[in-house]
Amino acid sequence: MKKLIVASTSTVHGSGYLAYILPTLTDFFKEVSTILFIPYARASGKTYDEYTEIARNTFATIDKEVVGIHEFDNPKEAVLQAEAIFTGGGNTFELVNQLYKNDILPDLTTAVENGTPYLGTSAGSNICGVTMMNTNDMPIVYPPSFKTLGFIPFNINAHYLDPNPDSTHMGETRETRIKEYHIFNETSVLGLREGSWLEVNGNSIVLRGNYTARLFQQNKEAVELESDKEISQYFN
Amino acid sequence: MKKLIVASTSTVHGSGYLAYILPTLTDFFKEVSTILFIPYARASGKTYDEYTEIARNTFATIDKEVVGIHEFDNPKEAVLQAEAIFTGGGNTFELVNQLYKNDILPDLTTAVENGTPYLGTSAGSNICGVTMMNTNDMPIVYPPSFKTLGFIPFNINAHYLDPNPDSTHMGETRETRIKEYHIFNETSVLGLREGSWLEVNGNSIVLRGNYTARLFQQNKEAVELESDKEISQYFN
Repeated sequence: MKKLIVASTSTVHGSGYLAYILPTLTDFFKEVSTILFIPYARASGKTYDEYTEIARNTFATIDKEVVGIHEFDNPKEAVLQAEAIFTGGGNTFELVNQLYKNDILPDLTTAVENGTPYLGTSAGSNICGVTMMNTNDMPIVYPPSFKTLGFIPFNINAHYLDPNPDSTHMGETRETRIKEYHIFNETSVLGLREGSWLEVNGNSIVLRGNYTARLFQQNKEAVELESDKEISQYFN
Repeated sequence: MKKLIVASTSTVHGSGYLAYILPTLTDFFKEVSTILFIPYARASGKTYDEYTEIARNTFATIDKEVVGIHEFDNPKEAVLQAEAIFTGGGNTFELVNQLYKNDILPDLTTAVENGTPYLGTSAGSNICGVTMMNTNDMPIVYPPSFKTLGFIPFNINAHYLDPNPDSTHMGETRETRIKEYHIFNETSVLGLREGSWLEVNGNSIVLRGNYTARLFQQNKEAVELESDKEISQYFN
C-alpha cells in the first residue's frame, strides 16, 4: 500500500532542516533503518555529496542512516531495494531531467506501489503529481518531458503564496499563473502552503499542518481545504 | 540594422498599459503606421482578440494601427511583411510553444535583421535572449525547445526582484535561481527591473529607465549596470 508524505517545504522560517516535521517523520519511518536520498534537485546548487550530508545529519538525530542515490553504481537497483526514499527540494526541472536520464521513474513507481515509504519536499513533492507543470522553479535545463510520477491524481504547487495586496510588483500572482495553466490543462492543482503536507495511505489523502490548502480546479472557483481532513474525494 | 526595445514589463504599478514607455515608443515607431501584435503569450489567459484589443487601444493614442498575427491566414508572411512587431507578455512557455508551432522564429529573425523595429515586453523580451531559461513563468505547456531568438547575446530575467530581507517565505530568491542556472549554463543573464528597458541598435545595447540592471555571469559576482550607458561590452 502506497505510503507518502508530500510536503510543501523542507524548512519553515526560523527553524532547522525538516525540524517542523521531524516528529511526523519519526513515526513515518519507524520501521526503517536506512533512507535512500535523491539529491538530484540540488537545492541552491549544492553538490550531491553536500546535499546528502545535510539530510544525513538531520536523520541521524532520529537514528536513521541516509545514503545518496549517487553513491550506488545502479540507481535503478538502489530505488528498488530501498527501505525508504526521500527526494529533496531544489530545481524541479533538473530533478525531472535526472529522473529521466537515470530512468528511475518506473522504479520509483514500483517501489511506492510495493509500499516503500516515500517522503518528498518541495521539488520532491512536485514529482508526486501528474505533471511538474505547477512548479515555481526556473527552467534552467530542458527535461525530456514534464510528465511525473502521478502518485496523487493532481498536481502540487509547493510553497504556495497568497497574493500580497500591498505589492507593487507587476509579475503574475501564483493564482493567476495557475488559472493560466487551467486554460491548457484539466488536472487539478493543490496549492500547499509552507508548513503543510499530505499524508497519503493507499487511496486516502489527508492534509496536515497548521494551514488550509488552496484547491484549483478547471472552470471552478478556487476553494480552501481544511487541515486534518480527508481530501481524496475532491479528485474522484 | 537591428532595432529593438526590450522592456522588463508592459506596465508599472499605478499607471496604464505601456504608459511609462509611450514617449519612447512614439519616437521608436515614428516611421511606422501599423504594428503587428503577437498575442501568443496570452497575459492572464486573455484570448488573442482580447489581448490585441488592449494593444490596439493603447497604440491608437499615438496614432498607430495594431493588427493581431492571428488575424492573418499566414503568420509567417505577416511577420515578413510587418512594418513593425510587438510581442506582448504573459506566459513564456506558451509563447515559445506557439512560435515553434507556427514556425515563425526564422521569420522573426529575418524581419529583425532587415531592420523591422521590434518591441518586446516581459515574455516578449525573454524571447530576445539566447534561451527562455530565465523566465519566471510557470511551465503550463511543454514547448519543443527552450531555444529562442538570440537577438541579444544573453538572456533576460524580466520583472527582476531583489531579495526581500523581511520575507519569511522559504522559496528561492531570484538571485539563487539564476545562480543555479549558471551551474548548468554559460550564457549571461540580465535582471531587468520593472520600468527598465534595453535600446538595441545594431550591436549597440543601452540600458534605459530609472534603475540599474543586475548582470549575472557564470563564476563571477553579480554586478549592477547603470542606466543610460552602453552595456554591449559586457557580452564580448
